[in-house]
Amino acid sequence: MSFEYLIDPSKGPQWKGQLPGKPVPYVLRKGEGETSMLFRDLFTVLLSGDETENQFGIVTADSPAGDVIPTHSHNETHETFYVIEGKVKLFYEDAEGQKQSSLLTPGDFGYVPAGFAHAYQIVEDARMMGTLSGGFERFFQHMGTATDHATKDQPPFIPDFPRMQAAAQQHNMQFMQGFEWPDA
Amino acid sequence: MSFEYLIDPSKGPQWKGQLPGKPVPYVLRKGEGETSMLFRDLFTVLLSGDETENQFGIVTADSPAGDVIPTHSHNETHETFYVIEGKVKLFYEDAEGQKQSSLLTPGDFGYVPAGFAHAYQIVEDARMMGTLSGGFERFFQHMGTATDHATKDQPPFIPDFPRMQAAAQQHNMQFMQGFEWPDA
Repeated sequence: MSFEYLIDPSKGPQWKGQLPGKPVPYVLRKGEGETSMLFRDLFTVLLSGDETENQFGIVTADSPAGDVIPTHSHNETHETFYVIEGKVKLFYEDAEGQKQSSLLTPGDFGYVPAGFAHAYQIVEDARMMGTLSGGFERFFQHMGTATDHATKDQPPFIPDFPRMQAAAQQHNMQFMQGFEWPDA
Repeated sequence: MSFEYLIDPSKGPQWKGQLPGKPVPYVLRKGEGETSMLFRDLFTVLLSGDETENQFGIVTADSPAGDVIPTHSHNETHETFYVIEGKVKLFYEDAEGQKQSSLLTPGDFGYVPAGFAHAYQIVEDARMMGTLSGGFERFFQHMGTATDHATKDQPPFIPDFPRMQAAAQQHNMQFMQGFEWPDA
């Protein structure tokens, strides 16, 4: 396992430049893309706003079962949750301000537009795909850390609080400490 | 199987109004969404531009193995191809104008932005997910026909040429008759 770029950031990560950075066609094999670890989850950017005139980006998340992630909301980012494998419980505030939850299994789809509090919990090891308003897709590598390895089975990365806050500010979102979900 | 809405379009289809039509949170179970048949393929709209301020829409396609679909290009629509099940051969013109093809298997991802000729062939029965620039997601129901049944195992819908042309014009794309792929 190589963490050279953590010692000398100018060296990498290896995936640097894998996405074209402009609107041209390309193909990625499973596991390819911009990989990063955030907590125990592997995030892989398959497409960024740089390729879509900032319309949208696409990320997959490979995640082990765990606790509910911190509740948050985005000021301008719309976000989808499509479950490919495993089970994910999605928590969200609905249009009437009611707190909802829904257990998503493979093939199920959730949508949370800008301005709505939400969180999720990986109930069984899961693979999810998310489409996001362009630019947000790189949040995960900014709050997490770049990695060359396309597996979640590697050392976790636990950001400190200033790093979390900096990533949240950069990506126009806020964590909502103290927000409770009835059936979490 | 009910085709009542084909006799009286004011009656349906049953899924009418299933998507909220504005940016609010919601969940769909596998099989839910705006379903339509186009040729032998079932297309399901999970999210439309109406929910995303026209940033993007999301569609799944459940398709039997078959021939290469007609080559086409979009004037303003960016389009992704993510293979969930099966095998799909993607044909595309690359940034250098070279004709490329790539066999995509589950977990593989292809991207074709506006302005590039492309086509695909379902090599083995497949389920794909596509994210599209907002608005294009309803192309499939305009060129195809709405259906209440979330399965591709139902009568195919073969559009006539005027219907194909009308849908293409409405969605700002063109078919490229006579365009050949070397390894199609």
